Amino acid sequence: MTSTASNQATLENFIIAPKKGVPFVSVAMMAKLVNRLGVENCIKALAERVENDYKRWDLFEKSARYATHSTNGVIELMPVSDGNMFACKYVNGHPINTKQQLQTVAAFGILSDVATGYPVLLSEMCILTALRTAATSAMLAKYCAPSHADTVALIGNGAQSEFQALAMKAVLGIGKFRLYDIDSAASEKTYNNLQQFDIEVVICSSAAEAVKGAHIITTCTADKKNATILHDDMIEKGVFINAIGGDCPGKTELDSRILQRADKVFVEFEPQTRVEGEIQQLSADFAVTEFNNVIKQQVKARDNDQQLIVFDGVGFASEDFSALVFLRDLLLQHSEYQILDLITQQADPRNLFSVLSES
Amino acid sequence: MTSTASNQATLENFIIAPKKGVPFVSVAMMAKLVNRLGVENCIKALAERVENDYKRWDLFEKSARYATHSTNGVIELMPVSDGNMFACKYVNGHPINTKQQLQTVAAFGILSDVATGYPVLLSEMCILTALRTAATSAMLAKYCAPSHADTVALIGNGAQSEFQALAMKAVLGIGKFRLYDIDSAASEKTYNNLQQFDIEVVICSSAAEAVKGAHIITTCTADKKNATILHDDMIEKGVFINAIGGDCPGKTELDSRILQRADKVFVEFEPQTRVEGEIQQLSADFAVTEFNNVIKQQVKARDNDQQLIVFDGVGFASEDFSALVFLRDLLLQHSEYQILDLITQQADPRNLFSVLSES
Repeated sequence: MTSTASNQATLENFIIAPKKGVPFVSVAMMAKLVNRLGVENCIKALAERVENDYKRWDLFEKSARYATHSTNGVIELMPVSDGNMFACKYVNGHPINTKQQLQTVAAFGILSDVATGYPVLLSEMCILTALRTAATSAMLAKYCAPSHADTVALIGNGAQSEFQALAMKAVLGIGKFRLYDIDSAASEKTYNNLQQFDIEVVICSSAAEAVKGAHIITTCTADKKNATILHDDMIEKGVFINAIGGDCPGKTELDSRILQRADKVFVEFEPQTRVEGEIQQLSADFAVTEFNNVIKQQVKARDNDQQLIVFDGVGFASEDFSALVFLRDLLLQHSEYQILDLITQQADPRNLFSVLSES
Repeated sequence: MTSTASNQATLENFIIAPKKGVPFVSVAMMAKLVNRLGVENCIKALAERVENDYKRWDLFEKSARYATHSTNGVIELMPVSDGNMFACKYVNGHPINTKQQLQTVAAFGILSDVATGYPVLLSEMCILTALRTAATSAMLAKYCAPSHADTVALIGNGAQSEFQALAMKAVLGIGKFRLYDIDSAASEKTYNNLQQFDIEVVICSSAAEAVKGAHIITTCTADKKNATILHDDMIEKGVFINAIGGDCPGKTELDSRILQRADKVFVEFEPQTRVEGEIQQLSADFAVTEFNNVIKQQVKARDNDQQLIVFDGVGFASEDFSALVFLRDLLLQHSEYQILDLITQQADPRNLFSVLSES
């Protein structure tokens, strides 16, 4: 956060708010807010926030996320702080859930004020996570894609795919998309959802067909297993692979030879990606670069249009931090929230017991 | 959780519930619920839950809590899972907050279903934490206090003190309480709040005076510093010290000589207490016993009435787990909750994008 007058007003509003309760953004409110702003505008603005927070990377107190694994999936906590605000996302990953019409991912997040420890925002993060993941991918693609990029292959057409497409359109002006999913109904769903936007969308019958002529290849599949969505022989030079589906131990998407012959492999927070990312297939000394070094202008993302560049994305807490602070700032202009009576507010802080007699 | 018919009904209710939203218990609802049941009944029932979960100690996936420290205080996350349910409490500790009429502790918690990863309960935990801390203290005192215990000294008369007193009354039948706080207004507050209960309460002018004749000594002060609330020469043999105020690095309450001459020092989860507890003053090999060993009948809490027994309590995630599951079960009979629209629920789980067009 900068100390502009506008942000100062935001801070004052929300630091005072906790006494009266905690603002909560529901799914319906988030959807309304995103529609009002336009999903592309939202992603574009959020991509700028994510990029700005990557510039401040060294200020963040970072840790690999907490994860508890079970037969059906994983439950994770993603805390991070910049010293002024603390953010934490709760997120699960249960691919099996779709069999009972439940979501694979049920996420929500909290933003709180480090100075008082008070939560200042609670929000759904099913939609917000899709927005921030897409924003992060597009922000990276801006640096990593070859200069002539105009076509994206989207392998895996689940919950994230439309957001990924619109992010590449909003941030890079990409207009051509090639879809592939092992379930053709998923590709049709994505195709239909994207019809309202001014882009060209083609459904392909294989991953190999989808990647033909694509300059950006996004893999975003859901199965929790070591799969090979992209084989080495499918991948030509001069592309950017945005590999974001492999994000926990035992869940990968790329042929490891692709990683080995890539000119550069970028990660978010190396200690977390070593455990969760595509690079879990390789030895612990396999060379990767944290992407914040590109934003800080210490490393070039791409030296020429012939290079093969890979982003091994697993999702990092700072991206959720950016999204929650972005949302908090939006709420100043758009009051899409309800107030939750989450924290006691008795007159004498030491007299917690009095809360019982007030009820 | 056992598999009784009643608990089965609870589980069904709440596992189905997520599709329609997540039950949320506000501060006002929690206060109403506790009043309806009676605070003593509540603490007594919760003490049984805590004890039962200590019996199942080995089943829990445990970790020391996540903590981020800042100038003013600490923000913590306390996750734990028994393989069926996952619980996580967000809690801060900012003693400085009272200067601006904010609470020292602003806590809330989440309970979720491990099989689906869905949150099934969100609750305030300012009140619930006070209840579970008191329930845990009384549960330990039942094992650790000398057999003739009828008097408790309460050193530190802040937010927890009334709950501590009523827990000792409800679980052990204790009727005499001796209060001391460096701020006499705090003692008066506690004294006044306890007048409605059938107990004898005396305000003392020093910690030394308060502990005279007490068989249980509870220290629960708020300052984040290495203080010496109890000096070695104040403490006679044959008492149980329930030291629960020292709970983070740099925050202790006991003269270390008390720990060194104690017959037994109990802790909750040793890796966490080494960092946060009274024993942070001592070397890493100072002998302590995890209290679950007493509940599992592997260790006796006290061998005779002459022993000096210390509980170095910092608060462990399993106690919050017990409290959240207890609350969830109560909500079957008492519908003190509202439903939050926290998780998307589109017909096709892969069609997250459709949530935007539905708004």
